[in-house]
Amino acid sequence: MTIPPIPAAGDAALDHALRAAIDGKTKPPGSLGMLETLARRIGLIQQTVQPRIVEPALLVFAGDHGVVEEGVSAYPQSVTWQMVENFLAGGAAINVFARQNGCALRIVDAGVNHDFGARAGLIDRKVAHGTRNFAREAAMTLAQCAQAMAHGAALVAEMPGNVIGFGEMGIANTTSAAAVMHALTGLPAAACVGAGTGLSADGVRHKQQVVERAVALHAGARAPLEVLAAFGGFEIAMITGAMLEAARRRMVLVIDGFIITSALLVAARLQPAILDYCVFAHCSDEHGHRQLLDALGVQPLLQMGLRLGEGTGSVLALPMLHAAVNFLNEMATFESAAVSNRSAG
Amino acid sequence: MTIPPIPAAGDAALDHALRAAIDGKTKPPGSLGMLETLARRIGLIQQTVQPRIVEPALLVFAGDHGVVEEGVSAYPQSVTWQMVENFLAGGAAINVFARQNGCALRIVDAGVNHDFGARAGLIDRKVAHGTRNFAREAAMTLAQCAQAMAHGAALVAEMPGNVIGFGEMGIANTTSAAAVMHALTGLPAAACVGAGTGLSADGVRHKQQVVERAVALHAGARAPLEVLAAFGGFEIAMITGAMLEAARRRMVLVIDGFIITSALLVAARLQPAILDYCVFAHCSDEHGHRQLLDALGVQPLLQMGLRLGEGTGSVLALPMLHAAVNFLNEMATFESAAVSNRSAG
Repeated sequence: MTIPPIPAAGDAALDHALRAAIDGKTKPPGSLGMLETLARRIGLIQQTVQPRIVEPALLVFAGDHGVVEEGVSAYPQSVTWQMVENFLAGGAAINVFARQNGCALRIVDAGVNHDFGARAGLIDRKVAHGTRNFAREAAMTLAQCAQAMAHGAALVAEMPGNVIGFGEMGIANTTSAAAVMHALTGLPAAACVGAGTGLSADGVRHKQQVVERAVALHAGARAPLEVLAAFGGFEIAMITGAMLEAARRRMVLVIDGFIITSALLVAARLQPAILDYCVFAHCSDEHGHRQLLDALGVQPLLQMGLRLGEGTGSVLALPMLHAAVNFLNEMATFESAAVSNRSAG
Repeated sequence: MTIPPIPAAGDAALDHALRAAIDGKTKPPGSLGMLETLARRIGLIQQTVQPRIVEPALLVFAGDHGVVEEGVSAYPQSVTWQMVENFLAGGAAINVFARQNGCALRIVDAGVNHDFGARAGLIDRKVAHGTRNFAREAAMTLAQCAQAMAHGAALVAEMPGNVIGFGEMGIANTTSAAAVMHALTGLPAAACVGAGTGLSADGVRHKQQVVERAVALHAGARAPLEVLAAFGGFEIAMITGAMLEAARRRMVLVIDGFIITSALLVAARLQPAILDYCVFAHCSDEHGHRQLLDALGVQPLLQMGLRLGEGTGSVLALPMLHAAVNFLNEMATFESAAVSNRSAG
């Protein structure tokens, strides 16, 4: 896969115009906090002082992980395909929140270890029936990794809107994300590994050992795509490819939790300016996410103790994106409303 | 005013049923974080495992403060009535966010120092043309305080829905709220006083001295209603009365920022069980709010650096209330979706 070049979103003149527009609104300067930062960010991405949110969508990628053999998850692998069926039936958390927030939802089989057959509503981009066990060998080949990334990019190219989020489902994928993080950031495995869907303290220690040994085993994998192929899931690689294409198209990328941020970490090592196109939806309760957000130097909008995945944090943050755009477009100015400005002025 | 007795919302059997309903949903236990706590809270208030959000509304109360004479605000007093006009014209932040989130908005003149005349959409409950300067004398009489509280209660009784938020507008009302907090909690004035709409560090020090001296001057005011009358605004007293009535009616009270929480502090000193009916929307950037939330022992949903007032934080949190109710009502269970539960089970 060719990695598209991504330019910085910045534009000093536009940023100045956005700040002036925000400070002219009938409110004390800075008093809308993160919503002000968010309005500027979206304005810069869309290159306008009147940004719009058009047809937001969430792509949910599902994949299985060979490393599940190491006993790193509280749930059996079959939950991956069962949850895909739940997504298709509309009964999962992500379905509920997407309906509530007017977000289109696309479910993609990136590499689930199950034969779904032809299923209405399921987008089949299966690379293989799950990855290999990265505790023993590379999770996927570089060719499979490139194929997954290309699928992700092509799916983004079909989306009509200008705001996109990413969700995931894959039993054992916090182990995969932790290994990617450990390998790329060099942070200790203890900082990267968490309880996932609900491991005991013993379970977390075991998972940490699995990650440490695997990263040592694949010590030759240093370049971002080598790390992605060594430890990544097909869903993670597909998301990395989708993110790069979305940023190239100047879409707003709404970044969810730990696994999605691990996919972004790979993308940011390839094209650092991708971060200009990202909005960080929330800080997950999954242990490594806070450290990963800190490593990227970014601030999340929400901190509500979520750790469900599926893209739920991104969809729950959508009302904040609407609020940011709406206040910028709809609020009166001190001048238009004839409200006195600061007495110091 | 007669203070209505407010019973605890708790019901152990119902709480158990709510926990079981939440844990049966297709997600790892606890993985929806604060949304799970919120769903239980709303279920307990409404006494059902299938809670509903019906016609949420925000009552915005405006009032002026005699203490503005002490130079405690970055804006002139005229901004209070000018912002009321902005609310009526639909141009303020609260208008934008209420429209976005399907929240009814009512604007109440609790005691603005301005003659509006008959104005469509403005509810006239003016107690007086602003309070007196509490740096010199009590802000209001006990009779005025009771009148304001009764007005607030009567306004709540007219609302058709089951979720209510409160907003405020009043130049210098962070000074009033800080004095109420200092007098009722005994926390140091430095913990209670912040920059309000944007004071300099010198301005904050001066404001802190004003609060300290005023609380010393009215040291005889100890009972909650005495403190409210000594330092409160008419809008704060009206909100306290509105809150007590809303809890008595088992409505969900969505608590906003510093000033609104100071009104709740008074209500909670009168009827501690009112806290069972409250959802804390956000932690304001106004200095005293975090300390006040801690003093009440509560956790806010959002921490987005907001410090605008008007009830904006409450309306921005409404989508989280919908999300909590929606996941409880709409998500599939492990059983209904035929998803395998934890392997440890």
